[in-house]
Amino acid sequence: MTADLRWLDDDSSSIDASAAEAARARQETLTKPAGSLGDLETLAIRIAGWQRRERPTLERVHITVFAGDHGIAAEGVSAFPQAVTVEMLRNFARGGAAINVLARALGATFEVVNLGTVNPVAGGAHDRWLGPGTMSFAQDAAMSEAQLVAALDAGRQSVERAVAADAQLYIGGEIGIGNTTAATALACALLPAKSETLAGPGTGLDAQGVARKAAVIRHSLERHAGGLGSAAQILRRLGGFEIAALAGAYVRCAQVGLPALIDGFIATAAALVACRLRPRADVWWLFSHRSREPGHAALLAALQARPLLDLGMRLGEGSGAAMAVPILRLACELHGRMATFAEAGVSERL
Amino acid sequence: MTADLRWLDDDSSSIDASAAEAARARQETLTKPAGSLGDLETLAIRIAGWQRRERPTLERVHITVFAGDHGIAAEGVSAFPQAVTVEMLRNFARGGAAINVLARALGATFEVVNLGTVNPVAGGAHDRWLGPGTMSFAQDAAMSEAQLVAALDAGRQSVERAVAADAQLYIGGEIGIGNTTAATALACALLPAKSETLAGPGTGLDAQGVARKAAVIRHSLERHAGGLGSAAQILRRLGGFEIAALAGAYVRCAQVGLPALIDGFIATAAALVACRLRPRADVWWLFSHRSREPGHAALLAALQARPLLDLGMRLGEGSGAAMAVPILRLACELHGRMATFAEAGVSERL
Repeated sequence: MTADLRWLDDDSSSIDASAAEAARARQETLTKPAGSLGDLETLAIRIAGWQRRERPTLERVHITVFAGDHGIAAEGVSAFPQAVTVEMLRNFARGGAAINVLARALGATFEVVNLGTVNPVAGGAHDRWLGPGTMSFAQDAAMSEAQLVAALDAGRQSVERAVAADAQLYIGGEIGIGNTTAATALACALLPAKSETLAGPGTGLDAQGVARKAAVIRHSLERHAGGLGSAAQILRRLGGFEIAALAGAYVRCAQVGLPALIDGFIATAAALVACRLRPRADVWWLFSHRSREPGHAALLAALQARPLLDLGMRLGEGSGAAMAVPILRLACELHGRMATFAEAGVSERL
Repeated sequence: MTADLRWLDDDSSSIDASAAEAARARQETLTKPAGSLGDLETLAIRIAGWQRRERPTLERVHITVFAGDHGIAAEGVSAFPQAVTVEMLRNFARGGAAINVLARALGATFEVVNLGTVNPVAGGAHDRWLGPGTMSFAQDAAMSEAQLVAALDAGRQSVERAVAADAQLYIGGEIGIGNTTAATALACALLPAKSETLAGPGTGLDAQGVARKAAVIRHSLERHAGGLGSAAQILRRLGGFEIAALAGAYVRCAQVGLPALIDGFIATAAALVACRLRPRADVWWLFSHRSREPGHAALLAALQARPLLDLGMRLGEGSGAAMAVPILRLACELHGRMATFAEAGVSERL
């Protein structure tokens, strides 16, 4: 690793085991059969450990969407033209995309970081343009070393801004035509797995398109076979700017102790990269939803992750993570505001 | 059926197919790959059909918790003493129960209807006391005809109050020590199924307790074998006041065209009764969550229902339904507020 990636080796923050234990003890006293709130109990206990207090709250959510174009899109692996990445950046700026609607409904702070689209676009609050998209990994490494360093660092900086804004939860989203192909290639190299097993329709390929996508990935993996010895090199050769930024953000969340809510397929591929870069960083992450993209299940299994929601979503942008925020908030409300058996004068078990 | 049950035969309200079709068409124009919001798309379309407008909203939620005690509790089928039903009614009145916390967080109107506890309790807003709990269905029919009529009607009246309050969504909850045993007996008679297959821990029985519960149900089903010829008679012989009220409420929701969000195991048993009393009433219902109670899966399968959430909950009170409200609200927000391809100048598919 180059000197500029050295921050990835910083330790993860510790969880407050005594706050988590106090929360667990409190759950046993609330007026309900023990365990009857299921995942809402374990969520409240985890959030207590993260926030270092028995009764956590979850008000301030920060969402960053990272954008980047993909050279691999030239191989005809997407149902949408590559111009859509920039068009969607304008849609984000005007507040018309799904994640805008969700961010407003949740009262979350929201920003977009453009890491490199085929065409530059004005108006992003935190532009960090690394070039006109990645190289096609069917031909070459997707990124230079310098681009990889900068993309990971863009993720780190987004988390620093979230911390500065006193956020209690971090959501990273992504947009980039072609990025399910990059995420699938990453997953194939990291797990490892065959591209035919993991490749899916992305934004809407038909069966022939999926087969083509799988073949492009298989040939690319053969081309890069000698250079996939580390997670960082796999990310540089097969990833994308926005995927690298997400990976950097997830590592940084663990280092600074800011819980991250992971979105769907692409975000989970980035999380697997992050977990290889910084083992056990995942104690600071929650997985929000099960994507309809078929490769997601394999990534979740590798991370031993069970997502909160299964709503058949496959949009990206951080939208699935945003959908899970009310679950976490209500878990905190129940934990903090229900009466105890003693307060309510309710009998405990026989 | 007696004259007093004749209202159950009134037709269900119709769905506005053209509003649903307009909503479906709108979904195709929103700035996302077609289908990529998964269940959130189908939810918005269903709610549009219910609300008779292309862009529905979901602000006003009404929650009624029905309480009733169960004679069957004397057979030792619950982990908690029967006094807990009344103690929990006091907890509801003070706002300390899970459903209170959720109702406040959701801004929902909330009421409790006490249909018959072993001990009367003062202070309920809509008391409708039918007696000191049901009879033990191990010995006798759980309810008289008059009690069945009154309990179903209590559910109907709760829906009328929700309509009067201009509610857009109805949630029914229940409390009653012993009521998973009654719900399991109902399920066994309606599906039909064996009690050993469906009986579960309820509020927290151990394996020996579950076996005892299954045996009590098996013997009771044998005792009532000649009198289980209709859904109404099954409900009268094996059900409970609060379960009958939920069934009446769900039928009434379909009749008046108020969407109902169904909670967990006991609510779903009531929904199956309601669907037998009023076939196709279920087009007005959504199933909120998959309970950890093992019999729930069989009930859901019989109703061809796929719940929105799977959070390992098994509390009752309407709590699982309440957890799903933010999903419905965000589905409406996305549907109503996202930009279209034309508005945003985003290219459609290749």
